[in-house]
Amino acid sequence: MKFSSKIEKCGQSPMRKFAPYADAAAARGLHIYRLNIGQPDIATPKVYFDTLKNFSRPVLSYAPSTGLPEMLDAVVGYYASFGVSLERGDMLITNGGSEALQMLLSCILDDGDEIVIPEPFYPNYATMVNLTGASVHPLTTCPEENYHYADRARVEACLTPRTRAIMITNPGNPTGAVLKPEELKLMLDIAKENDLYIICDEVYREFTYNGEPLLSALQYEGFEENVIVIDSVSKRFSACGARIGMLISRNRALIAHALKWCQARLSSTMADQLASAALYSVGPEYFDAMRKEYRLRRDTLLRKLREIPGVVCAEPKGAFYVMAALPVDDAEKFQHWLLTEFEDRGETLMFACGGPFYATPGRGLNEVRMAYVLEAPQLERAMELLAIAIERYNKR
Amino acid sequence: MKFSSKIEKCGQSPMRKFAPYADAAAARGLHIYRLNIGQPDIATPKVYFDTLKNFSRPVLSYAPSTGLPEMLDAVVGYYASFGVSLERGDMLITNGGSEALQMLLSCILDDGDEIVIPEPFYPNYATMVNLTGASVHPLTTCPEENYHYADRARVEACLTPRTRAIMITNPGNPTGAVLKPEELKLMLDIAKENDLYIICDEVYREFTYNGEPLLSALQYEGFEENVIVIDSVSKRFSACGARIGMLISRNRALIAHALKWCQARLSSTMADQLASAALYSVGPEYFDAMRKEYRLRRDTLLRKLREIPGVVCAEPKGAFYVMAALPVDDAEKFQHWLLTEFEDRGETLMFACGGPFYATPGRGLNEVRMAYVLEAPQLERAMELLAIAIERYNKR
Repeated sequence: MKFSSKIEKCGQSPMRKFAPYADAAAARGLHIYRLNIGQPDIATPKVYFDTLKNFSRPVLSYAPSTGLPEMLDAVVGYYASFGVSLERGDMLITNGGSEALQMLLSCILDDGDEIVIPEPFYPNYATMVNLTGASVHPLTTCPEENYHYADRARVEACLTPRTRAIMITNPGNPTGAVLKPEELKLMLDIAKENDLYIICDEVYREFTYNGEPLLSALQYEGFEENVIVIDSVSKRFSACGARIGMLISRNRALIAHALKWCQARLSSTMADQLASAALYSVGPEYFDAMRKEYRLRRDTLLRKLREIPGVVCAEPKGAFYVMAALPVDDAEKFQHWLLTEFEDRGETLMFACGGPFYATPGRGLNEVRMAYVLEAPQLERAMELLAIAIERYNKR
Repeated sequence: MKFSSKIEKCGQSPMRKFAPYADAAAARGLHIYRLNIGQPDIATPKVYFDTLKNFSRPVLSYAPSTGLPEMLDAVVGYYASFGVSLERGDMLITNGGSEALQMLLSCILDDGDEIVIPEPFYPNYATMVNLTGASVHPLTTCPEENYHYADRARVEACLTPRTRAIMITNPGNPTGAVLKPEELKLMLDIAKENDLYIICDEVYREFTYNGEPLLSALQYEGFEENVIVIDSVSKRFSACGARIGMLISRNRALIAHALKWCQARLSSTMADQLASAALYSVGPEYFDAMRKEYRLRRDTLLRKLREIPGVVCAEPKGAFYVMAALPVDDAEKFQHWLLTEFEDRGETLMFACGGPFYATPGRGLNEVRMAYVLEAPQLERAMELLAIAIERYNKR
C-alpha cells in the first residue's frame, strides 16, 4: 500500500524516538534522567483539578468551534493584563498550540511554498510544514553568536518569491534566545515590507530570567494583517496534558479561514477548556516562583555542563532548554549507547538529539537539546552522568 | 495577504453556517428546534464525570502520543466483546474521530489523488480531503434507492488511476443507510482487488434499529492492509465534548506513519482519555435504552415528515439522521427565511442544508439533513412547524 509523499518526508519526533529503548532500559531497572521532553515538573495549579471536580452536566455536548466563552474571555483578560487589547473574535481555541499551528499552516501554505525559520528550531515545525507540501527555509544560527537571527541582511537573504511566512519562537525552543523589543520590531518590519505572515510562537512568554516584561508581537501596532501568535496553557501553567492552545490574530480573514478547519474538527474539549480557563486565575506569585525555580535550574545545568571539556553552549535567556554541542561523533549513536550499554550506579540520561532541530542537512549531528525540567540536584547528577558517559563513550 | 489554495476551496460547515442567524433569532426571543447538529440529548453516563471528580495528580503531563494505556485497553476490551481481537499497537487515540480522519488522510493522499465516497456524505469529509490537495470522487446515491451504494459495477465505475481509497460511513450519516454483512464484504473485496484503502467510519455502530448485531469491517479476515476504522466515544456514549476518538488498523506501516502526526501534536488530553476509558464500563442496557429511544424518535419524525405533501425521504435504518428532499426552491434560502422571517407561536427550526453533503455540483439543493436528537413530542412539533413553514414559504 502506498503512503502520501508528505508523510514519507516526515521523521519521527526526536524527543520521542528513543522511547522504546528508554522503556527497555527502565524495565531492566535503570533510572533515567529524562531531559528529552519539555514536560515541566512544576505543580499544576490546583484550580485546574478543582474545576474538573465540579464539572457536571446532563449531556457532555460539543463546545463552540471557536472555543468556549469562558476560555476565550480568560485569554482576553490575560492579554489585557499586559496591555494587549483583544476581542473574542481575534482568536480560536485549539487542541494545544500544536493544532493552532497545524490549522494555520494549512491556511497559508501551498505545495512548493517556503517558510523561513531560524534553525535550530522545534522539530515538529518541520513535520507540520512538510504535511502542507511546503518546505522550511532555514535561517542558520549558532551558539557562538548566541543564536542571534534578528538581522535584516540575514533574514532578507532567506526570502524567495515562494516565501509566505517567517516563523519564530520567542523565547526560543531549543535555543533559549530571547528577542529584545527592537529585535522583535525588526522581524515584524521585515515581514510587513515583504507582505509575509509572521508567526510568533510565544508559549514560553513567562519563561525569561533577566526581569524582562511580558512581550508579545501583538503589542506592536500596524502589523495587524501580518502577526499570528501561537499560545498555549501547557508550559505557562504546567498543564501540558490539558491540550488547550490558541491561535490569535487580528487578521480576521485568516481567522475566518482557520474557522473552517475548526468547524471540520467540531470543537476542542469541554472539560479541559473550562479547567484551563480557571488556570488564568493564578496570580503573579505563581510565575515569580516558577521563574526563580527555572533560573536556579538553568544556572545549575549550565555550570555543570560548562565543566565538561569540549562542550559548546550559549546561556539560554528564556524557555527551559539548553542546546549544546557535545564532544562525541554522533548524538544519536551516543543516545542509543546511553540507553543500551551505559550505566553508572544504575542510572543514565536522555536528551533530544540535535539533527532534527536543523533543516540544513548535516548540521547539529553532535548537538543535543536538554530540558531543565528536573530539580537542581537531579540536574547536577544528570550532568555528572553526562561527563562520565562522554569520557567512557570516547574511550570505547 | 494570500491564503492557501486548499483552504480557499473549503466551505463553511453547513451544520454551523447559520449559527449567527440562529443567535440573532434566539436573541429576539424565538425558540428554535435545532435539528442541524448531531448533538445527542441522551444523558452522558455519570461515570465520565465521576472519573473527572477523582482526577488529580501533581503535574498534568502529556499523555503518550499513541494514547493513554487505560484508554487503549478500554477500546481493546470493547472490540473483544463482539469478537474483534485487537492489540494496543493497532490503534492511536485521537482528538475525536475528526483528528483520526485528518491524520489518516494526510498519510494516504497526495495532491491530485482521489477518494471515492458515496454521496450524500458528511460534509466535513470534503473539507478534510480538500486540505490534503486530493479530491472526492462521489458515488451518487438517491433516496428512491434507499441510498444503496454497495454495487460492484457502480463502485468500480468510480475508480481511476488516481484513486487511493474508498470511504464509507456505516451506519450512514446523513442517509441512515446500514450495510448488510455481505454488502460490507463486497466493499472490502473491491478495495482489496484494487489495492485501495477502505476507510470505515463506524462511529454510529450502536445506532441500528432492526436488531442487527454489532458490525465492523475489522471482523473480516484477509483485509488487514486495507481496512482502517474511524471510531469515537462521541455518539456512542453521548460524549461529543470529550473529543476522544481513535484510528484503528492492523496495517502497522500505516499506524507507524500516523504516529508521526501524533507525535507532532504531542498527545491527546489526559483527563478526557481517562474519563472516556471509564465510559466503556457501561453495560448493554445503556445501548438498549438508547436504541429504543432513537427508534421512537425516528418513527415519530418519519411519520410526521411523510404527512407533508411533496417531501421525499427514505427510512433511515441507523444513525440518527434523516435526509429529505423538501418541496422548496432552495434549502439555504428556506433556512435563512426560517430564521429571519418565519415564526409560528414564537418558534422556528433549523436543519443542515443538503448541498454540501454532495460533491456533484447542483445536487441536494432542495434537500436537508435533520438529526432526530430531540424527544419525540418536540420532533412532532418541529415537523408541524416544517409543514406550516413550507406552505407559507411557497405562498410568499
